[in-house]
Amino acid sequence: MNHPMPHLSLLKRALPDAFVEVLSTRFGTRFSMTEAIRLHHGRDESAFDPMLPDAVVFAHSTEEVADIVKLCSQYEVPVIPYGTGSSLEGHLLAIRGGISLDVSEMNQVVAVNAEDLTATVQAGVTRKALNVHIKDTGLFFPIDPGADASLGGMAATRASGTNAVRYGTMRENVVSLTVVTAAGKIIKTARRARKSSAGYDLTRIFVGSEGTLGIITEVTVKLYPHPEAISAAICNFATVEDAVHCVITTIQMGVPVARVEFLDAAFVKAVNVHSKLTLKESPLLLFEFHGSEASVKEQAELVQEIATDHNGMEFTWATNPEDRTKLWSARHNAYFAGLQVKPGTRAITTDVCVPISKLAESISTTVADCEQSSLPSLILGHVGDGNYHVMLLVDPAKPEEFVEAEKINHALVSRAIQMDGTCTGEHGVGLHKMPFLIEEHGEDALDLMRALKRAFDPKNIMNPGKIVALD
Amino acid sequence: MNHPMPHLSLLKRALPDAFVEVLSTRFGTRFSMTEAIRLHHGRDESAFDPMLPDAVVFAHSTEEVADIVKLCSQYEVPVIPYGTGSSLEGHLLAIRGGISLDVSEMNQVVAVNAEDLTATVQAGVTRKALNVHIKDTGLFFPIDPGADASLGGMAATRASGTNAVRYGTMRENVVSLTVVTAAGKIIKTARRARKSSAGYDLTRIFVGSEGTLGIITEVTVKLYPHPEAISAAICNFATVEDAVHCVITTIQMGVPVARVEFLDAAFVKAVNVHSKLTLKESPLLLFEFHGSEASVKEQAELVQEIATDHNGMEFTWATNPEDRTKLWSARHNAYFAGLQVKPGTRAITTDVCVPISKLAESISTTVADCEQSSLPSLILGHVGDGNYHVMLLVDPAKPEEFVEAEKINHALVSRAIQMDGTCTGEHGVGLHKMPFLIEEHGEDALDLMRALKRAFDPKNIMNPGKIVALD
Repeated sequence: MNHPMPHLSLLKRALPDAFVEVLSTRFGTRFSMTEAIRLHHGRDESAFDPMLPDAVVFAHSTEEVADIVKLCSQYEVPVIPYGTGSSLEGHLLAIRGGISLDVSEMNQVVAVNAEDLTATVQAGVTRKALNVHIKDTGLFFPIDPGADASLGGMAATRASGTNAVRYGTMRENVVSLTVVTAAGKIIKTARRARKSSAGYDLTRIFVGSEGTLGIITEVTVKLYPHPEAISAAICNFATVEDAVHCVITTIQMGVPVARVEFLDAAFVKAVNVHSKLTLKESPLLLFEFHGSEASVKEQAELVQEIATDHNGMEFTWATNPEDRTKLWSARHNAYFAGLQVKPGTRAITTDVCVPISKLAESISTTVADCEQSSLPSLILGHVGDGNYHVMLLVDPAKPEEFVEAEKINHALVSRAIQMDGTCTGEHGVGLHKMPFLIEEHGEDALDLMRALKRAFDPKNIMNPGKIVALD
Repeated sequence: MNHPMPHLSLLKRALPDAFVEVLSTRFGTRFSMTEAIRLHHGRDESAFDPMLPDAVVFAHSTEEVADIVKLCSQYEVPVIPYGTGSSLEGHLLAIRGGISLDVSEMNQVVAVNAEDLTATVQAGVTRKALNVHIKDTGLFFPIDPGADASLGGMAATRASGTNAVRYGTMRENVVSLTVVTAAGKIIKTARRARKSSAGYDLTRIFVGSEGTLGIITEVTVKLYPHPEAISAAICNFATVEDAVHCVITTIQMGVPVARVEFLDAAFVKAVNVHSKLTLKESPLLLFEFHGSEASVKEQAELVQEIATDHNGMEFTWATNPEDRTKLWSARHNAYFAGLQVKPGTRAITTDVCVPISKLAESISTTVADCEQSSLPSLILGHVGDGNYHVMLLVDPAKPEEFVEAEKINHALVSRAIQMDGTCTGEHGVGLHKMPFLIEEHGEDALDLMRALKRAFDPKNIMNPGKIVALD
């Protein structure tokens, strides 16, 4: 399978003078063609080399985004929306030049409808900023990818995180979007009702579309009441298999765990170093339980029994909020902890998701692959969903290490697909996962995706060349 | 707004001889042009007069469906998939003739993956048949529209029902679909992983597409472990407002009720007659709680407190399974109970869903409208979602009663949309709700829906003239 490394390909076109003139007049210092700003917008957290947009515009409103897109449509200039730059699969690389449309300054919370358990935010509001904003309402927004990503970006990549096993992903938690279409029209994808059967699901079409069908400018999400009680616990296991089977049983018994995260021994060690913790360095599950006092107690007791049945070691509890926060911060910083295992390396991360019945086999075969490799590797995952990541550290100066990492990646993704799983559980397609879509979906389904792309973006200006390439 | 009553319009074309010849040779007695069979397939549970397809084909496999659709594409013959005929908004009417493709004999459960909490069924399997099939697994499928609808039809209309407040709708519970496209290709919309970010959400594009983008032939759905404990309770209220405010508080406090149904006094009376019950004939809430013994007890106590705060009368408990089944059967037969309030009438049912903060206002103004009308009216709803139905009984011989019912319907749907709600929470668009889509979505969003329809069905043969009309 041909891997579309962006440096292999693809013309970069200069921006038309008239286009530059209009934008620089209208946006002043919010329009930039300087190298540093373009560089900042031409990369993400993937291992790809940067590919710079020709210019960057900072928008402050949906109407500004619409005007910019109209101009891009008129001049057929590619446009790539940019939130916090935390995507992991090359989504933001300007492989055909054009402009990066930065929405990070669209950072206003538009409305909090606490009584309806919804909030509407501009696309640049981050998940943490939203939670700070609503902290006095008794509500919270649960979706938590590792980074403090923007809600627009999270919707665009169909993100999830550690709470998805209980609260779902962006797919389930976006109520409605404001979108600027490829023609520069402003639409709302849905009303604010909890459910609707009123026509095609435009919301779900744009969730996960990675900027290729339109630009998300506002997001209405579901909020949840803070649980009356929360407790968190760590349980170590002697083997990866025991840990994974403990998770499988927990899910199959329907225990409503809020979080269940797996870290292999290498990741535990990295997290210990990075976050100054003293966790026992063997495969580990990190649980969190939400509910009433009685329900949390019940869930915890049941999971402890299940863990014991799978040779789990003692539970360590983190009942007070400070300890819990420390633990989950460490988990959220795992990516950066992993990078520091071998300073100067880059990470090639994978992200597969398999039916839970296949999880043990999927992880075990991957562990075996990694053990045969010379590359440092770390495994962690939102295993309650059957979703896990492998982080392979490669020396940027050694192309052969990239090749080796991609070989491991390719094998494990192919196995996941053969197990009726997916090539990406939550990171999205970007550039890195494009070669796997044919294997996962088949040619006829990809034809429908291309038909959708052509229908919504006939000039192919919206983040062109991502998810499905049209030419 | 022009109401597209199908009898007003639309040419019916005779089937090409060669088309008939091929189908009758291939399908024998499973291809029919007899009046009785066409009549059975040219209507649903809506108040519309039937509009007959020119022929009916009974398919037994996805491959047969694909072959039929290829032929329809070749001869540009409209094709309307048919499950159990229980849709409510005119979805099945053959307004442009063509064939009805009956999948009711595709009634095999393809796979039960108990360990993954999923089942895959052919499109003609009904929700009750699925639950009978899996009864020994300890799992159940929760989505329960009033009728014993087919899973294919439920996916096609984005159906829900009484359990949606806890378990979600078909939008959240379809994992993957097998679909025959308008070109007669067979695709799978997704793998069986619990989550995925691998490209456009084809699953959600087909869920709710009402046969207008392709024909669903297999459905993979989520299953849930039977809760350890279940209890149900009835609580009467003196006023509609008190009942609705009780629900609003329950939802806002995050109590994980499994079901909370509202019936107005008229519906309680109808249900008493139809199901030989002796429920107190005032506005009523019917609750069900799922969970562990302790959690169910906790939820019930909390809701009792909330009900007391809203002047609720005594709770009546149905703890044993027989009593519960009787109660929920009565609820599910409410539609037929309502019809018998005035024998010989037809029902015009509405189906709006509003943000929960607007529910009391929405229902109260509707009650006032109904009280001013001479038509018998009954209100019930899945009020935990903000979703309710009004059933207006009209004499088929009196056109003025249809006009009056539609006037009430129009006013209440418009109000719902103004409240940021939707013109249909769960019944779908069909013919009856088409006029409201412009008000709900706006012209630019409808343009995208039309672009999607054209991209997926360029010859406009898939249930043409429904959801969005292209000509």
